[in-house]
Amino acid sequence: MGNFKGHALPGTFFFIMGLWWSTKCILKYVCRKQNRTCYLSSKALLRRAEIWEGIVIIFMALTGMAGEQFIAGGPYLALYKEGQWNQLLGWHHTTMYFFFGLQGVSHILSFTISSLPVSLSKLMLSNAIFVESFIFYNHTHGRQMLDIFVHQLLVFTTVLTGLVAFMEFLTKNNVLLELLRSSLIMLQGTWFWQIGFVLYPPSGSPAWNLEDQDNKLFLTICFCWHYASTFIITGMNYAFITWLVKSRLKRVCASEVGLLKNADREQESEEEV
Amino acid sequence: MGNFKGHALPGTFFFIMGLWWSTKCILKYVCRKQNRTCYLSSKALLRRAEIWEGIVIIFMALTGMAGEQFIAGGPYLALYKEGQWNQLLGWHHTTMYFFFGLQGVSHILSFTISSLPVSLSKLMLSNAIFVESFIFYNHTHGRQMLDIFVHQLLVFTTVLTGLVAFMEFLTKNNVLLELLRSSLIMLQGTWFWQIGFVLYPPSGSPAWNLEDQDNKLFLTICFCWHYASTFIITGMNYAFITWLVKSRLKRVCASEVGLLKNADREQESEEEV
Amino acid sequence: MGNFKGHALPGTFFFIMGLWWSTKCILKYVCRKQNRTCYLSSKALLRRAEIWEGIVIIFMALTGMAGEQFIAGGPYLALYKEGQWNQLLGWHHTTMYFFFGLQGVSHILSFTISSLPVSLSKLMLSNAIFVESFIFYNHTHGRQMLDIFVHQLLVFTTVLTGLVAFMEFLTKNNVLLELLRSSLIMLQGTWFWQIGFVLYPPSGSPAWNLEDQDNKLFLTICFCWHYASTFIITGMNYAFITWLVKSRLKRVCASEVGLLKNADREQESEEEV
Amino acid sequence: MGNFKGHALPGTFFFIMGLWWSTKCILKYVCRKQNRTCYLSSKALLRRAEIWEGIVIIFMALTGMAGEQFIAGGPYLALYKEGQWNQLLGWHHTTMYFFFGLQGVSHILSFTISSLPVSLSKLMLSNAIFVESFIFYNHTHGRQMLDIFVHQLLVFTTVLTGLVAFMEFLTKNNVLLELLRSSLIMLQGTWFWQIGFVLYPPSGSPAWNLEDQDNKLFLTICFCWHYASTFIITGMNYAFITWLVKSRLKRVCASEVGLLKNADREQESEEEV
Repeated sequence: MGNFKGHALPGTFFFIMGLWWSTKCILKYVCRKQNRTCYLSSKALLRRAEIWEGIVIIFMALTGMAGEQFIAGGPYLALYKEGQWNQLLGWHHTTMYFFFGLQGVSHILSFTISSLPVSLSKLMLSNAIFVESFIFYNHTHGRQMLDIFVHQLLVFTTVLTGLVAFMEFLTKNNVLLELLRSSLIMLQGTWFWQIGFVLYPPSGSPAWNLEDQDNKLFLTICFCWHYASTFIITGMNYAFITWLVKSRLKRVCASEVGLLKNADREQESEEEV
Repeated sequence: MGNFKGHALPGTFFFIMGLWWSTKCILKYVCRKQNRTCYLSSKALLRRAEIWEGIVIIFMALTGMAGEQFIAGGPYLALYKEGQWNQLLGWHHTTMYFFFGLQGVSHILSFTISSLPVSLSKLMLSNAIFVESFIFYNHTHGRQMLDIFVHQLLVFTTVLTGLVAFMEFLTKNNVLLELLRSSLIMLQGTWFWQIGFVLYPPSGSPAWNLEDQDNKLFLTICFCWHYASTFIITGMNYAFITWLVKSRLKRVCASEVGLLKNADREQESEEEV
Repeated sequence: MGNFKGHALPGTFFFIMGLWWSTKCILKYVCRKQNRTCYLSSKALLRRAEIWEGIVIIFMALTGMAGEQFIAGGPYLALYKEGQWNQLLGWHHTTMYFFFGLQGVSHILSFTISSLPVSLSKLMLSNAIFVESFIFYNHTHGRQMLDIFVHQLLVFTTVLTGLVAFMEFLTKNNVLLELLRSSLIMLQGTWFWQIGFVLYPPSGSPAWNLEDQDNKLFLTICFCWHYASTFIITGMNYAFITWLVKSRLKRVCASEVGLLKNADREQESEEEV
Repeated sequence: MGNFKGHALPGTFFFIMGLWWSTKCILKYVCRKQNRTCYLSSKALLRRAEIWEGIVIIFMALTGMAGEQFIAGGPYLALYKEGQWNQLLGWHHTTMYFFFGLQGVSHILSFTISSLPVSLSKLMLSNAIFVESFIFYNHTHGRQMLDIFVHQLLVFTTVLTGLVAFMEFLTKNNVLLELLRSSLIMLQGTWFWQIGFVLYPPSGSPAWNLEDQDNKLFLTICFCWHYASTFIITGMNYAFITWLVKSRLKRVCASEVGLLKNADREQESEEEV
């Protein structure tokens, strides 16, 4: 991770996942509110989407692990070399990716094996995020002030995200908690990019003074602006999906499931009891 | 904010909002307990009040932001000037006001767009307060002991307020939690005034010794007295509103909604099931 | 409080209240389990007991406040004297007692005024305990190591007690939470005595070395033993009350409410639905 | 505890308990899902298992206490000897074991005395774990960096475990919370072994450099790997038990309770309402 790309990669991963989670939970919520018949027909589709989500997460985790291990000058799976630990920071990142991979596996399992509780995936997500916090908390020994500060903010975000994910696990089906968690994941993604820009300015930009107190004060509000922008992205996403569902999907659904309508409605009213 | 007025302004804002929230939730609670018929008729009124509340919050936030930016010697929207950051503390306060503005917007949206969950407003309030805590926590680098202490107490209050607001978001309709949150907001308001008096004594008063340990001990209990006084204000407010509802509103309501009575009652008993 | 008696007094108060709360909640629980008919008849009795509880708490708080203010060499209600703060530590204790008095008042109000929610008393208890924590946390500046440590343990206990009381406020009718809170209050009471013995050894005992690390290690386990003993006291209390209710009260109740039996049972079964 | 065996003993105890708890709760969950008739018949068996569990815990606690006190060079129940405290660290461990013994007693009581709430055992478990955290937190004064760090991780694990156990106490019957707690207990067990290996390397291995920052970075990820392995153990346990219940127990149960079937089913369906 010790360069710009090493921060841009996880940043992109987290941002994409945050955006997808936010889209998924808005879609579910709006569908349930707007056109009930469509909801049932898309259940199978959503289940397939969940499995694809798991596969994508595992793929991202494997990419991250491979990138950390087999990059030029990386540890190449050697933990102990020539009488001392070998590139432990790279191993830290590998471990972090591994727990997200574990989450992906448990996500797939909880949607394919019916005897497993569905909330297992939520618990493992919360776990993976807490492990990430733990690792980043013990990660920045002996670095410069601003370097520590940006990583502290990352730990702060991840701890909050983990708490929200855990609350989701305990109290099921709160759409706002899911959106909050997605926003925090997006914030984490954009903040990874910010860290990349601060610590490894891309060619051409001047380096930041890592001991300047003013930079710290600026990054404090910069962090808040990132957070505000995730809210605005979520809000626009919500407006867009509501519009889409209202105008398009309703028509499609109506024709598709026209025949099943009456049967479905009865089934639904039973489920709601 | 670097003067007495800069602290009195947010202090007044927070105190007014705390008092209004406390009044609103007592009114709702007493109405529901005392005269049920009136409650329905005032529902539309309460909804209009909520929208006005949102508008007032946005107005306060805009006032605060304008005050911070366009005061004599303020940053005038310039973030970076002459090779260094420009008045970051002012930008901190602007960001803080911005999140409260965001809360006002989401408050209006959640009461006008029916598909949005009403608790969105609670979540955004809790968010705005946590962002405020975060900003004030990273705000007092290198100041004097007492200056840091009074701001720490502010952060302490806001973190508690944010937690209570978040609990409200999770467990709906607990009148005591709402009153607790209102009290804490009032406490924050009066404490802003206290900070103003301590750091920028109005003309005539002697300056406080910002390194004296005894002053810290005094401000500790002073903070508790502020807290106790918010309880007493809330208690008196409760007694006053109960008396008002019992003596006045009942009569008014009785005449106003006399004709609708029977229909309403039936509707209500259905709602309660 | 700066002597042995000043710590023994609140210690006794807290221990008595802890024991009473533990007794009350065991009595309620056992009665509800054992003989249902008796429960109703004792409802009025319990309500009267609650009001007496409030009066006793107010009396204790007033005693404490008077003791702190009008003891020989106390502040005598003078906050500012001869150009400096006057005995602020005494004022700290007065403030602490005041909040417990407020709890007593709200306890009486919540059981006499029917429109007030009963859980108000729980909330105010949690508040009073948190204020106590806050005051003791800002209380020990510049003292010796062991002095700070025993007060830290006190703050630790009170924060936990406040949290448990707050949880009780949120989740009603959990007998074990009530017992846990009572145990913690008893622990606080006995720990006040322990502080008295450590800091102001009664005549005859040698003074403790307040900078010795071994004393700290000892007080750590001593604290655990206090905690264990509150469990054993609660357990013996439970066994005693169960035996008492089974052998005695049942007979008394049976004769007292014999005539009301059938009517009550019907009423009860309705309430349980 | 000041040697390898002193860490291997509690490590083994915790690992066995974690594995047993994990097995118990998976067994209960799978039984409830798979074959309902068998569940009832095993209720008596489970109750007997619970009592045996309590006895085993008490036995473990007594072993631990005896080992700490009567080991060669131990305190032999003398708390104060020759004018100073006698081996307080040994007394710390004795106190820790004592609270687990208390948990065992309350576990047996809550399953034999019907008037006691069953969740008492959960509360006492959470208590015992929190007391353990408290003791270990005040345990490592003046030691070397890595020694403190591995104990901090232990405290971190125990605090988390205590929180999860407390949540279990509040929200009953969440299988994933129980599995999480079991995993954390197993993690604690294996981490005790790891501490033994780090601080007292068995004969032949070189000693660790207790001031080396790299060792700290390694132990950070090592801790995560321990955690990951408890997940994998739990997952394999789950797969194994599911397979066992499906293939074996069903057959056994079917023959055993064949006659009771119809009656049981009716009873069950009533319980579920």
